[in-house]
Amino acid sequence: MSETAIFEKLAIIGAGMIGSSVAQAARLTGAVNRIVMTDRCDSVLREANALSLADDYTQDAAEAVVGADLVMLAVPVGAMGVAAETILPFMRSGAILSDVGSVKGDVLSTLDPLVPGDIHLIPGHPVAGTEKSGPSAGIQDLFDGRWCILTPPPGADQSAVEKLSAFWERLGSKVETMDAAHHDRVLAITSHLPHLIAYNIVGTASDLEEVTRSEVIKYSAGGFRDFTRIAASDPVMWRDVFLTNKEAVLEMLGRFTEDLTALQRAIRWGEGESLEKLFSRTRDIRTRIIDAGQDEDVVDFGRHHTDSEGKEIE
Amino acid sequence: MSETAIFEKLAIIGAGMIGSSVAQAARLTGAVNRIVMTDRCDSVLREANALSLADDYTQDAAEAVVGADLVMLAVPVGAMGVAAETILPFMRSGAILSDVGSVKGDVLSTLDPLVPGDIHLIPGHPVAGTEKSGPSAGIQDLFDGRWCILTPPPGADQSAVEKLSAFWERLGSKVETMDAAHHDRVLAITSHLPHLIAYNIVGTASDLEEVTRSEVIKYSAGGFRDFTRIAASDPVMWRDVFLTNKEAVLEMLGRFTEDLTALQRAIRWGEGESLEKLFSRTRDIRTRIIDAGQDEDVVDFGRHHTDSEGKEIE
Repeated sequence: MSETAIFEKLAIIGAGMIGSSVAQAARLTGAVNRIVMTDRCDSVLREANALSLADDYTQDAAEAVVGADLVMLAVPVGAMGVAAETILPFMRSGAILSDVGSVKGDVLSTLDPLVPGDIHLIPGHPVAGTEKSGPSAGIQDLFDGRWCILTPPPGADQSAVEKLSAFWERLGSKVETMDAAHHDRVLAITSHLPHLIAYNIVGTASDLEEVTRSEVIKYSAGGFRDFTRIAASDPVMWRDVFLTNKEAVLEMLGRFTEDLTALQRAIRWGEGESLEKLFSRTRDIRTRIIDAGQDEDVVDFGRHHTDSEGKEIE
Repeated sequence: MSETAIFEKLAIIGAGMIGSSVAQAARLTGAVNRIVMTDRCDSVLREANALSLADDYTQDAAEAVVGADLVMLAVPVGAMGVAAETILPFMRSGAILSDVGSVKGDVLSTLDPLVPGDIHLIPGHPVAGTEKSGPSAGIQDLFDGRWCILTPPPGADQSAVEKLSAFWERLGSKVETMDAAHHDRVLAITSHLPHLIAYNIVGTASDLEEVTRSEVIKYSAGGFRDFTRIAASDPVMWRDVFLTNKEAVLEMLGRFTEDLTALQRAIRWGEGESLEKLFSRTRDIRTRIIDAGQDEDVVDFGRHHTDSEGKEIE
């Protein structure tokens, strides 16, 4: 790497899909000189080792953070507090403590009282991911072109915020800074509610008796299969998201249900005009997302088409 | 084409995305010797002509079906009756009248009383599509490896059903025959409800004031963008689906809402265990869909990753 490292030593707490991706991207871009990975699960850590994700591996989180100038918590949101309590006494003065959790208000209110004055707490959230879990699910360019939202507490050290921003930018991200509460409301609608809805409809479908499960699977190309990908996301991570961003999720869910009830009524009373009006309005949002570079205008998500023998067709 | 044609002349009523795909696939596979396309909209027909989708084009549907041994209605479900009334007096004795509509009970009950005894009415539904509309959105291998469901009325001529099955198989489809009412219940959960939910959440998001629309678009990679693709589907086609499959959609929607209310309660009362249980169960369905070949196990739907300059990264 021709560019100089931004941090000397990065300690990643949690070797799951995101932790693994951070390690790979940080190494690829030379953002750090040394990476230590830790995970409370021995088999996960051995998998990370087999993939050569880091320079050092230890099951002892306290040992991992010694001498690190950047410590990244990559555990489910509900596990952040315990992890922080374990490592904080061993972190070096002036180091940055950050995380990759999908909820920021809860992380901030949990960690802020624990963090001593000489450690810079700057929570963060890379808005990127897949439905896969574990070290081998990591992707080295996962953050490339994706937004990373930092939610520094009021009065945070500006040079520390800039250094962490530079780190994420080196990994390819576009960095935005906002208030933790606002982050949680934005993500409630763009991420948390879509996941909740997807989990719910897949659950509803699997409970049907009259329509067999094999029929649901067979004819899933009609729309259902896209929901199943989202509903295959990590159960523990998402359990914690809904438990810790309860207020914003319940509010967005309330709005969603209200709108759905109106739609239900329009169907029952055969109000074709209002259905068509909504369906036309939503098409416009899609166009804007493609224009903003947040998705590709490729039909069928670019899924490959194959002939009857399974060969790919152009 | 080395294989002989299954039908001599195919008349396609409606030159939209599906009609265009049928034309392209039928020509590519040599399933028919001649294709005539008709559309009530002059500009659509001219677009089809510019794309060389058929051998002949006419705005007069009655003229199009003269001498055709297969007539395929590829118009929104709500327009099937009027289209059939226009063409039936001109169809030749022994010809097959089929369609590609997403709802089958309504098509059957609308067309059955109109069709004379010497015409074989065999409704059908290729379970394939994209969110795009119009002749240029047609894809020649759209039906390849996808299911096509035929819903012949009781007492339908068996040789005609077999001939139509052979046609769809030539286009690459796997063909299944079932009762129209059962089709409508299966598709209500695998396709119609997912579309309704997607339309609804995109509508809810676009109505928020506190979270700006540009924020919704910016952070859509968290899950929301997958819903916007589905919610970009043809408004008129989907309006008709909900108006004509009202009963099954409302029943599935009732089940969905019931489950969602239970989920909402679990979030409100912090019942982490039941959340995790549902989220684990839904992961299993995804695995089965991939095993059944109904989707690919490619993360991020195989979307390309690009670097900050927009170049593709491997």
